[in-house]
Amino acid sequence: MTSTAAAASVDASAFQAALTATADAVNAELDRLLAPVAGPENRVVEAMRYSALDGGKRLRPFLACASGDLFDVPRARSLRVAAAVEMIHCYSLIHDDLPAMDNDDLRRGRPTAHRKFDEATAILSGDALLTEAFAVLADPATHPDGSIRALLVSELAQAAGAAGMVGGQMIDLMATNLSLDDAGIDRLQNMKTGCLIAGPCRMGAVLGGATKANIDALGAYGLAMGLAFQIADDVLDVESSAAETGKATGKDAAAGKATFVSRLGLENAKKRARALADEAVAHLEAFGGKAGLLKQAAIFAATRRK
Amino acid sequence: MTSTAAAASVDASAFQAALTATADAVNAELDRLLAPVAGPENRVVEAMRYSALDGGKRLRPFLACASGDLFDVPRARSLRVAAAVEMIHCYSLIHDDLPAMDNDDLRRGRPTAHRKFDEATAILSGDALLTEAFAVLADPATHPDGSIRALLVSELAQAAGAAGMVGGQMIDLMATNLSLDDAGIDRLQNMKTGCLIAGPCRMGAVLGGATKANIDALGAYGLAMGLAFQIADDVLDVESSAAETGKATGKDAAAGKATFVSRLGLENAKKRARALADEAVAHLEAFGGKAGLLKQAAIFAATRRK
Repeated sequence: MTSTAAAASVDASAFQAALTATADAVNAELDRLLAPVAGPENRVVEAMRYSALDGGKRLRPFLACASGDLFDVPRARSLRVAAAVEMIHCYSLIHDDLPAMDNDDLRRGRPTAHRKFDEATAILSGDALLTEAFAVLADPATHPDGSIRALLVSELAQAAGAAGMVGGQMIDLMATNLSLDDAGIDRLQNMKTGCLIAGPCRMGAVLGGATKANIDALGAYGLAMGLAFQIADDVLDVESSAAETGKATGKDAAAGKATFVSRLGLENAKKRARALADEAVAHLEAFGGKAGLLKQAAIFAATRRK
Repeated sequence: MTSTAAAASVDASAFQAALTATADAVNAELDRLLAPVAGPENRVVEAMRYSALDGGKRLRPFLACASGDLFDVPRARSLRVAAAVEMIHCYSLIHDDLPAMDNDDLRRGRPTAHRKFDEATAILSGDALLTEAFAVLADPATHPDGSIRALLVSELAQAAGAAGMVGGQMIDLMATNLSLDDAGIDRLQNMKTGCLIAGPCRMGAVLGGATKANIDALGAYGLAMGLAFQIADDVLDVESSAAETGKATGKDAAAGKATFVSRLGLENAKKRARALADEAVAHLEAFGGKAGLLKQAAIFAATRRK
């Protein structure tokens, strides 16, 4: 891990600064794209804004922009892709929080959409964010070349649909009855979370007219870092619970779901996250020094403390 | 109404035959596009298939194909657009039927998706159909020109999103508290139902590389016939209830919602539907005899008995 550690000591603060700057820029973009309307249907727009302008790290938007930067994509374009991906992420959180799914009352310390509004409005606001994401990608403002715009739509639909995020969520809902093996759990995590992290990595490259090999390399980077991110999540769940509440295990374990920590043990889970970060970084080799921020992002994903 | 009645006597059976043929073809297309998969996520694909292969008149697919026929669009392309539009229609039915919305147990005589599967699976299958619709449009198989594919995505997103179908559903949920005037109710109906009827009319023309004027004419046709369709629905709701159950009013009226019949009276509602059909037909003037089936579709929408 020497190279990883060295890179981290050089650039971690630059990564945090870039992450914050992208978050600010994508928040402004979302605010503009989801403008209030005059009619009574503004209630659904209000609900879309409530969930989409909710903050968060904005890791997926960062990845779209940083990937686009490798190919000198104008920021105005990569921010539209970033906003579209974040709309999908936010819709998925709204629907996942519903009583029929995870039944959560709070998200990032605020009432979930169905608690703040009502269940019907929450469902509709998720549907509308999902739809609007594709409207943003298909708009000529995203790229002058229609075939690039159509490819962006294909990429996002692939990442978000039954073969990706929604399929992963379906498996996750059944997981307690499926007795998945390790490969099955990796696949579930890749579908549920990895696809929508690999997606913006690929889409930044698509915007830049990258070769298929480069698009695939960035997708492989994203998938590895996405899995590292999930493992770090499980580690945090245990360690923060242990520190803050005195309980040894967090919500997923309590719900009877297998976590990476329950399967691998805490130390091996941490090791695997670091190995995945190294794997992610290896996929960036072709991009040389230009990929410094993406390297830091992988290290952050694997080792973050919050 | 003499011209309308004359056209009806000539071609109504040809329209019914074309409607049935398109329904068969789009069912086969949907069956192919929504193929079962090997993983456990097939549960969501199964639910998508359950709702999307459910039959129905397939009016929207018919409109996409008939509009494409005006511009000699190959049927293989218009059927993909037809299938995408129908996926959106089916997703909207799944979500509208949910307990938090209309809470319906039956749809076309079968259990609704959340009754057949469960609520979470129903929500996810709607999300996945919505996503897949855009994947189908963006695929090069739909049209070799990427800018046409991107425009199709824009058109469908516009029709289905917060400015269209979802916004209309939002208003409909609030309607009992809004005291909408006549213009407000027309607008609600146009958004909730009209946009996704005008959408395939426009998209068939987009596929054919039509001029903006022709695309707009077909959109105006679709909006007028969509409103006629809704009024005929209210008329049917009253007349079939009266005949079959002895009650004078149907479900919407019982729910305290204003219907076209409750606002206009039965005879004036029928008159307005016929006037809208004439308006729809007038928008087809530029297409001459080639638009015979679309003319019949408008008459059918306004005067149907089921």
